[in-house]
Amino acid sequence: MSFSTLSELRARLLDAPMPDAAAIDGAAARNAQLTKPAGSLGRLEEIAQWYAGWRGNAQPKVEAPQVIVFAGNHGITARGVSAFPAEVTVQMVANFEHGGAAINQLSRNAGASMSVHAIELDRPTGDFTETVAMDEADCVAALRVGWDAVDEKADLLVVGEMGIGNTTSAAAIAHALFGGTAADWVGRGTGVDDAGLKIKEEVVAAGVALHGDKDPLDILAALGGRELAAMAGAIARARDLRIPVVLDGFICTAAAATLERAVSGALDHCIAGHESDEAAHSRLLAGIGKEPLLSLGLRLGEGSGGALVIPLVRAALECHSGMATFAEAGVSAG
Amino acid sequence: MSFSTLSELRARLLDAPMPDAAAIDGAAARNAQLTKPAGSLGRLEEIAQWYAGWRGNAQPKVEAPQVIVFAGNHGITARGVSAFPAEVTVQMVANFEHGGAAINQLSRNAGASMSVHAIELDRPTGDFTETVAMDEADCVAALRVGWDAVDEKADLLVVGEMGIGNTTSAAAIAHALFGGTAADWVGRGTGVDDAGLKIKEEVVAAGVALHGDKDPLDILAALGGRELAAMAGAIARARDLRIPVVLDGFICTAAAATLERAVSGALDHCIAGHESDEAAHSRLLAGIGKEPLLSLGLRLGEGSGGALVIPLVRAALECHSGMATFAEAGVSAG
Repeated sequence: MSFSTLSELRARLLDAPMPDAAAIDGAAARNAQLTKPAGSLGRLEEIAQWYAGWRGNAQPKVEAPQVIVFAGNHGITARGVSAFPAEVTVQMVANFEHGGAAINQLSRNAGASMSVHAIELDRPTGDFTETVAMDEADCVAALRVGWDAVDEKADLLVVGEMGIGNTTSAAAIAHALFGGTAADWVGRGTGVDDAGLKIKEEVVAAGVALHGDKDPLDILAALGGRELAAMAGAIARARDLRIPVVLDGFICTAAAATLERAVSGALDHCIAGHESDEAAHSRLLAGIGKEPLLSLGLRLGEGSGGALVIPLVRAALECHSGMATFAEAGVSAG
Repeated sequence: MSFSTLSELRARLLDAPMPDAAAIDGAAARNAQLTKPAGSLGRLEEIAQWYAGWRGNAQPKVEAPQVIVFAGNHGITARGVSAFPAEVTVQMVANFEHGGAAINQLSRNAGASMSVHAIELDRPTGDFTETVAMDEADCVAALRVGWDAVDEKADLLVVGEMGIGNTTSAAAIAHALFGGTAADWVGRGTGVDDAGLKIKEEVVAAGVALHGDKDPLDILAALGGRELAAMAGAIARARDLRIPVVLDGFICTAAAATLERAVSGALDHCIAGHESDEAAHSRLLAGIGKEPLLSLGLRLGEGSGGALVIPLVRAALECHSGMATFAEAGVSAG
């Protein structure tokens, strides 16, 4: 049994497992003996020790990465917030299922399993400028789609999304969680023009005026989408299973941030895969205290930036767990 | 036949092949039709089109990446420029051969073949504060080790190095090629202390005072090492074979820069894999006009940063060549 209310989810987050201190210590001790100058693998060394802690193993490898893409439709698309029509969500789900999207190629390239969950595409969320996007039952149902989608055998998770209009939803969540102005958080998404950007800003401002004083998980329900809730649910489940997570871009980070604002430390099992080209992503990453690994100008979503980072995480663990020590190799330690 | 003098190498560089304009145009046209918002894969799109041009194929994939590690010993190590003793070069070559080093793990993780070429380790280069590191015949021999090491069937190349003392050699080359002061170009390498850093600065200044007014390929001979010359030779051969190259860190970039300064455009088939933690690497990358893909604080050498980027280049081509077009997938193009 997972949870049947947002309050029960919050209780699960409060009760979530912590990293294994002995595994971190063992990994740090091993790292100091590997045949390389101290610190010379930079952030790969941090990643290896972080990963070891969550897996409870001082010398682990990444063998079963999982990518899950969630799709949802948004009531606010009727307001003209996207450069693409809402029917593209269902078209892209078919593209995922047929293997034609970027995330299919990136998952295969990363040696990751990939699954797609289209969540009630024929029932868009409510227009959050007028009502809540999801009531509690709807939000919990979507969270549980994500929770149940995580493979217990996975050892690294990336969650991605597809949902025309969802950068607007993510901007509204970010604005509600972290303050500032609506303009601080809206960006061009898939490519809206100046007029579209102005509409996004007004829609975000209106949504936050109506719902911005709620608790973080209620903000997820009021301003989110089903795919955002599912991502949050999967990230929470990964914590429960001690599966490290690579966060993707702006929308994934906004969904994840609701967990962190609900319970501080809820994202300790997550790293930021990349800084996307969506204008407010770096501000959002700063809000959850994460430093991105890549900055390659991606702004696609689907989990693409997260999947691109899987080979880097695997590389970090291949080095950490596969390299010889100074003693094993007979190399002078300087 | 390759070349038997530095002047003949320079002639080969002047006569090197250029990218295929039709393949670039074809790749750009394909990119515009793929099922994603225009530009949303950021630098992955640039990489795909650059790679397509060099391979002469608008829809290529990366199937046979090659990593080559060259090792050499340096006369200047007697001056105390390194945190490690010179015998570590030969010890690490054994570690490469037994599969225990970082580059072994990173090559395997990248699906790349890997070979190691130890070049006359029992005959260190001359101390460049007193004489040339290599005379022309020695330098040509090392360049040709690199030239001959490239697999004609490879479709992506990374060259790396091992050579205690070689950040000092690389700093001297960079200072001679790009001016400034010795202090602008020296860094902590594998981890020298302040006293060691001061020695490096003096050694670099002395070497450049003696040899700094030579032509770029003569600077490679006078201030370089056999592993640096071999890297330059391999990069030149890759151009000859239209094999794209991912540059590694400070030492690899210094070796490559001698080609670019000898013949402008000689590195057009190369991308900068990463910005290393060696202080002057970003300055050196600016000198050859390259923007690094990663910045993860690596400072190991061996080709490690280049090998880490192979999965990213492969990912770029998997997306470019494997994704469905809007028409194929029946997705509305916005």
